[in-house]
Amino acid sequence: MEVLEERIKKDGIVKPGNVLKVDSFLNHQMDPFLFKEMGKEWKARFHGTNISKILTIEASGIGIACVAALCFGLPVVFAKKSIDVPLDDSVYTTKVDSFTKNKCFDVSVSKKYLKEGDKVLIIDDFLANGCAVYGLKDLIEQAGAELMGVGIVIEKGFQEGGKKIREDGIRLESLAIIDSMDPETGEIKFRH
Amino acid sequence: MEVLEERIKKDGIVKPGNVLKVDSFLNHQMDPFLFKEMGKEWKARFHGTNISKILTIEASGIGIACVAALCFGLPVVFAKKSIDVPLDDSVYTTKVDSFTKNKCFDVSVSKKYLKEGDKVLIIDDFLANGCAVYGLKDLIEQAGAELMGVGIVIEKGFQEGGKKIREDGIRLESLAIIDSMDPETGEIKFRH
Repeated sequence: MEVLEERIKKDGIVKPGNVLKVDSFLNHQMDPFLFKEMGKEWKARFHGTNISKILTIEASGIGIACVAALCFGLPVVFAKKSIDVPLDDSVYTTKVDSFTKNKCFDVSVSKKYLKEGDKVLIIDDFLANGCAVYGLKDLIEQAGAELMGVGIVIEKGFQEGGKKIREDGIRLESLAIIDSMDPETGEIKFRH
Repeated sequence: MEVLEERIKKDGIVKPGNVLKVDSFLNHQMDPFLFKEMGKEWKARFHGTNISKILTIEASGIGIACVAALCFGLPVVFAKKSIDVPLDDSVYTTKVDSFTKNKCFDVSVSKKYLKEGDKVLIIDDFLANGCAVYGLKDLIEQAGAELMGVGIVIEKGFQEGGKKIREDGIRLESLAIIDSMDPETGEIKFRH
């Protein structure tokens, strides 16, 4: 998605350790007009797919998913992160390792809002090792719902998440795929 | 705001301890079309106010603020919650007590995204004792920015936050104000 790649080149900052800071427009300060363009792009790419609900994970996925949901005309649910919270039988829970935060979270969603028959599109900001996607997939499977696809803003193509998801036969639509980035020069190479 | 009050009556659940569960449409599962109506309502109520940025707090404020920001044509920043995270001089930090979670959080925002000259509208889902609003106000003041107003979805009118904010001369626009709610009967009385 050209407008997104241009924005990443203009405002993204490459840091050592394969970290890309896009907090000026994506995950701290947020540009809702860019989110609307992203939502329209996913809507076009998933055209013909029968989706009934969007699922994301707090915190930075929420704004993106909400604006995308407006474009799709669908409700959104966000999975909640918690550390050391006692389990509760009103929720489905799974564990997710965070690449950027180097932490393991319990992630949960209410049984009331993820159910058998739901046809779910996962939306998230970043895809690196795929842990968040597989965590959300696990919640969807626990609920007896169906995973229809995954929409990602920025896929780190040099990490294994995207490859694994595609090999598992899951429809993945990443709006920008980064093949390499150089913290010395700041250069970012996109896959096309 | 009538459509919101009707939705609260229809889908809100009153629990003991002055808790109102609205997680079917506001803060776990989210209805982006309702959020758009809310955004349009705040836009009308704050007409003529010179606002340059919307500030909210993770997690449940983010979706509401993002969709509202689309209506205003403005960027959003969300303040991040953390527990026991070392302070960092790239952020402004303050402490917030959560009424519903009975916890104290450190809340922070990058100095890059809140600056002198910013004219800030705070958006959040609930107003109870006002701690989140005063925490965000503190961040705005640390940045030398200006607080232009506060937009709240549901104000618990029987708690002291709204009264205090109005007495402090801050413009507060709550889309629904609850004067009382009864966990026995489920009855909710709105202020008009």
